[in-house]
Amino acid sequence: MSRAYNFSAGPAMLPEPVLRRAMDEMLDWHGSGMCVAEMSHRGKEFMSIAEQAEADLRELLAIPDGYKVLFLQGGASTQFAMVPLNLMGRGEGADYIKTGSWSKKAIAEAKRFGAVRIAATTEEDRFTRAPAQDELALDAGSAYVHYTPNETIEGVEFPYIPDVGERPLVADMSSTLLSRPIDVARYGIIYAGAQKNIGPAGLTIVIVREDLIGAATEQTPTMLDYRTHAESGSMYNTPPTYAWYLAGLVFQWLKDLGGLSAMATINERKAAALYAAIDASDFYANPVEPGSRSWMNVPFTLADPELDAKFLAEAKAEGLLTLKGHRSVGGMRASIYNAMPEEAVQALIAFMQEFERRNG
Amino acid sequence: MSRAYNFSAGPAMLPEPVLRRAMDEMLDWHGSGMCVAEMSHRGKEFMSIAEQAEADLRELLAIPDGYKVLFLQGGASTQFAMVPLNLMGRGEGADYIKTGSWSKKAIAEAKRFGAVRIAATTEEDRFTRAPAQDELALDAGSAYVHYTPNETIEGVEFPYIPDVGERPLVADMSSTLLSRPIDVARYGIIYAGAQKNIGPAGLTIVIVREDLIGAATEQTPTMLDYRTHAESGSMYNTPPTYAWYLAGLVFQWLKDLGGLSAMATINERKAAALYAAIDASDFYANPVEPGSRSWMNVPFTLADPELDAKFLAEAKAEGLLTLKGHRSVGGMRASIYNAMPEEAVQALIAFMQEFERRNG
Repeated sequence: MSRAYNFSAGPAMLPEPVLRRAMDEMLDWHGSGMCVAEMSHRGKEFMSIAEQAEADLRELLAIPDGYKVLFLQGGASTQFAMVPLNLMGRGEGADYIKTGSWSKKAIAEAKRFGAVRIAATTEEDRFTRAPAQDELALDAGSAYVHYTPNETIEGVEFPYIPDVGERPLVADMSSTLLSRPIDVARYGIIYAGAQKNIGPAGLTIVIVREDLIGAATEQTPTMLDYRTHAESGSMYNTPPTYAWYLAGLVFQWLKDLGGLSAMATINERKAAALYAAIDASDFYANPVEPGSRSWMNVPFTLADPELDAKFLAEAKAEGLLTLKGHRSVGGMRASIYNAMPEEAVQALIAFMQEFERRNG
Repeated sequence: MSRAYNFSAGPAMLPEPVLRRAMDEMLDWHGSGMCVAEMSHRGKEFMSIAEQAEADLRELLAIPDGYKVLFLQGGASTQFAMVPLNLMGRGEGADYIKTGSWSKKAIAEAKRFGAVRIAATTEEDRFTRAPAQDELALDAGSAYVHYTPNETIEGVEFPYIPDVGERPLVADMSSTLLSRPIDVARYGIIYAGAQKNIGPAGLTIVIVREDLIGAATEQTPTMLDYRTHAESGSMYNTPPTYAWYLAGLVFQWLKDLGGLSAMATINERKAAALYAAIDASDFYANPVEPGSRSWMNVPFTLADPELDAKFLAEAKAEGLLTLKGHRSVGGMRASIYNAMPEEAVQALIAFMQEFERRNG
């Protein structure tokens, strides 16, 4: 086939113009005679790429002064340790909001490095909603409050930014960063694995308020100390240069598209169309409360799970790939990140309706 | 320019056939409709790429049974912490051999997690040689012995594998792995950042004997525990998939070339030619003892450092890039890894001779 519509939760589709530009520049970036992957990270060519990428990201997110932007490795799973190692010393334990599979992982890791209180959980509702502000029980002495604005597996999204007072708010935005404008000033730390909306796997973006840097516990490995990377422009050691470059191309694509407000309009429209199609049918169902539904990850089930395999096989034959739900929840999941074109969502809806007509 | 000869110490040149194949497969890998960077790491397409890469690496290095091969993130600098966090508990402190800038970094990090003894150092010789076997003072209770077979900055290489008895031998092979056959069975752990001989920056290869897995200290972050990655086939979280794929293409290129014996013959010839040219001249000098000279990194100085800038500018105009020595030692450095063609070394030698003729 030519280009497929790939609904993977991550790694996920990249914008085709980004891939085409990477292809064109593979053997010779801007007359340098080098692929970006071959460049010394300290040479002027790569430094210009790195600086442009950071500047574009700052512009897209309107990141205020007083925040460092770090280009790291290790994924959100490494941040699950870095956050407590760097911040636990600031208070007496931390508050975590438990809304699904990824916040559970963050909590399990944080418990290894300090006291963790669950400020709210929706586990008794099988993670089908985000808790409301007045459900959050925050401790006076919290070092920080951690939450997961978008739960990739459950398809649950916070429709608001929690008010946590003076405590630093820490957010795992792996599956939502860059999908819409956000008010960065409300956060202490935002982190995100790149492999959904940013670029290829192997790059992790961390946006950290400067006053939160420099108080890591003594046993923190140098590479897990935010200070190490903040003081060196993310070049304490060799960064993932090619992934950084591809992320920079994604940032330029977003700017060309009109920035995050324009992206948000498209994303909202894609999600609304897909949820509407699901809700209009008794054949498909999504379990999440309408006010907490994710724009990015849309899990749905077939009324008859016996048809799951047939659905997946026929979808694949139509070029609609990776629709199988996460192994922990089953069913289907359509991840519709920034790079997923609107016509792909329309194609998925048309396929779903046709499949229901033949099998419903 | 078209393709340049890039003598960077890392990230470094990649084989042109590897880049061409990546370019051809950028929009559609093997009819999948996806770039490899877009594939779910748990899908059958990427799993086949990952497994083939590991199988090819095992074949190239003749890795015996009883070793895990891990595809990680974080570079050698993260291994500097992972090694003591995972192994210190096995004995009373560890022995480190100090031969240059990178072993010093490994030592500094290990000291944060346990007692470090210096089994040998060549610091009084300004790191111009590898210590001999009979200079190594190893402790009876050592948890492990760590060394750096090739010091990238000083251009010093061990001409032998240290005999450390029953202690596990741990080697930072970042700048030498895959440059020649090695006897893996002599090692407990071999680790290497990819960005010299393996692939793009952002991938770290770890080859670890299975009995060394599973005794990490309690405070070890989950992502820094070898067990986490050994038990999950390096897929505890999303691995750096595109870098893994490019490394796999490099492994196939090496196999097509005849494997590591064939590669070693070429590498030895490249290094011999360049050192012979340096030694034949009073205009250029390399400070390293002949028996400890690196095949991979060839530092050299000009008799008149005033000419350095001119040398670099004229070399660049000839398409000979990134010859400036590391900022800590000055002078020049030609890194001539696997992907550096023999004709490039000949071109460098011809340029050096011509430059000397005009300026000597």
